[in-house]
Amino acid sequence: MKLATIDNGTPDGALVVVSADGLRYLGAGTIAATLQAALDNWAEAEPQLRGLAERLAAGEGEDTSAIAFAAPLPRAWQWLDGSAYRSHGELMETLFGTEPPPPGRPLMYQGLSHRFLSATADVPFPREEDGIDFEGEFGIITDFVPMGVSPREALGHIKLIVQINDWSLRALAPIEMKTGFGWVQAKPACSVAPFAVTPDALGDAWAEGRVHLPLAVDWNGEPFGKAEGGPMEYGFHELVAHAASTRSLCAGTIIGSGTVSNANFREVGSTCIAERRGIEMLDEGAARTGFMRFGDRVRMECRLRDGGLLFGAIDQQVVRG
Amino acid sequence: MKLATIDNGTPDGALVVVSADGLRYLGAGTIAATLQAALDNWAEAEPQLRGLAERLAAGEGEDTSAIAFAAPLPRAWQWLDGSAYRSHGELMETLFGTEPPPPGRPLMYQGLSHRFLSATADVPFPREEDGIDFEGEFGIITDFVPMGVSPREALGHIKLIVQINDWSLRALAPIEMKTGFGWVQAKPACSVAPFAVTPDALGDAWAEGRVHLPLAVDWNGEPFGKAEGGPMEYGFHELVAHAASTRSLCAGTIIGSGTVSNANFREVGSTCIAERRGIEMLDEGAARTGFMRFGDRVRMECRLRDGGLLFGAIDQQVVRG
Repeated sequence: MKLATIDNGTPDGALVVVSADGLRYLGAGTIAATLQAALDNWAEAEPQLRGLAERLAAGEGEDTSAIAFAAPLPRAWQWLDGSAYRSHGELMETLFGTEPPPPGRPLMYQGLSHRFLSATADVPFPREEDGIDFEGEFGIITDFVPMGVSPREALGHIKLIVQINDWSLRALAPIEMKTGFGWVQAKPACSVAPFAVTPDALGDAWAEGRVHLPLAVDWNGEPFGKAEGGPMEYGFHELVAHAASTRSLCAGTIIGSGTVSNANFREVGSTCIAERRGIEMLDEGAARTGFMRFGDRVRMECRLRDGGLLFGAIDQQVVRG
Repeated sequence: MKLATIDNGTPDGALVVVSADGLRYLGAGTIAATLQAALDNWAEAEPQLRGLAERLAAGEGEDTSAIAFAAPLPRAWQWLDGSAYRSHGELMETLFGTEPPPPGRPLMYQGLSHRFLSATADVPFPREEDGIDFEGEFGIITDFVPMGVSPREALGHIKLIVQINDWSLRALAPIEMKTGFGWVQAKPACSVAPFAVTPDALGDAWAEGRVHLPLAVDWNGEPFGKAEGGPMEYGFHELVAHAASTRSLCAGTIIGSGTVSNANFREVGSTCIAERRGIEMLDEGAARTGFMRFGDRVRMECRLRDGGLLFGAIDQQVVRG
């Protein structure tokens, strides 16, 4: 099942169910006005939403081409981003002389959640000199998660899967990281692809709490990377359990994978510029790829093995803010 | 003017205006159902709320002793916590060999904002071994703040001042801090004193974006510290401008001062146990004060120079979660 949020001018938009091919939708307002409301009451809402999905599968629904999608959750109470791909982490550790994370502890920070940009919105930044970078990620959305859940229990709290562009300002990131406090200035609002999908929509590409599909990134129309989502050191269920160790998680908590990265990044490419620059530093002694300029575009998409676009596409431009 | 939120069983509670002495209240539902709604529309809501405050000053209102207050914002879209008292920072740097923050850059992390506990709620934690500690802070709440505001402009966006207990788990904090990602497990939900007050309620104790009043902390009925709020290295307006450098801030953003601390902490005491333990390590070679145990209570209050309790009191017990 695919869910989405129509931008109707309100802060949380209006919930719709979308057909598997993304071409038609049915309004879900009689079940839940917003995706947050559906997540707050998921056990009751889900079977009713699946009823709409069945009607869509039978051919009902309106044309999606005429409407504007917001992010699935245009704002959320909690966004926790991991960094679960070791090939990315190891590269950064090699380059910057930082230490690897403690064994058995996923990396995670809490980020800006009061606004998630739509997949096609212009993205405003104050300065090119801040080092504007995209980061292609997968993410999940939970219902309410009690404090202290096991990874196994956490798996059942993963209700939706999303695709995220975690915008990063690379000139600011190391300065903030060095304080130990994590990022505020270096991590403005993320963008999210339009469709939030239930795990069953991935078929066997959802396994062990991981998305076993490639995330294709194009920068200004040129292929930049196509890394597989599978090789996370920790699955999303383990990230959920880590986050819920000393707190319960509210319904609508979004947890990110961190930049998708594969050990053979020289072959498959990267999902952020910082990683490509890191590879250049290692291989050529200096980074030759610059960060994004105002007017640059980035496109990110994830296709099922049958070619279908799973989450819809992120395709957007950075602009002077 | 003092605002508060009555716990009416809904996630955001019901907004009320409270008399200066905290003894009477008038419901504000006809103006704004919740404090968040008032902040979303502050320019219109504030003068109307002040109308209720005038009626309270004239003797109207119901008795507050019969009602239960929630935190002023029982949940917020954004909580950014600073660490603006250099005496606390310098002590920690001396003890742990960490580096001071870069000149001109306030320390700040983004924390859990989907739940703020009331001032009297039991506070559940999974394990005493995690090093349960209180942190007495002041905080401010903004209306919408555009990206790139100056500190001077930011001052006008500080609409309310609050008193916060930023609960911390000290055994987890250094492990998370070392990753550079900031804290997730080490920083569960904060507690907030019941009254959020407008800056004018402080009289000349609100100056240069700082609260020039002492924060008294008692642990299990024994005085623990009474540090002055004034000596922040950066005022709240500078913290707001720092936070808004690369993002706009949503209305209802809460920004904290960090643990209130004074250079003469040996005389005035501390507002968190970690600081007292640090002083013991420096002076006696080892920390002899333990962290909190289940059943322990902490009380925090801030009195105006005339003796009036400004924010109401935080007075609560930690329990096994």
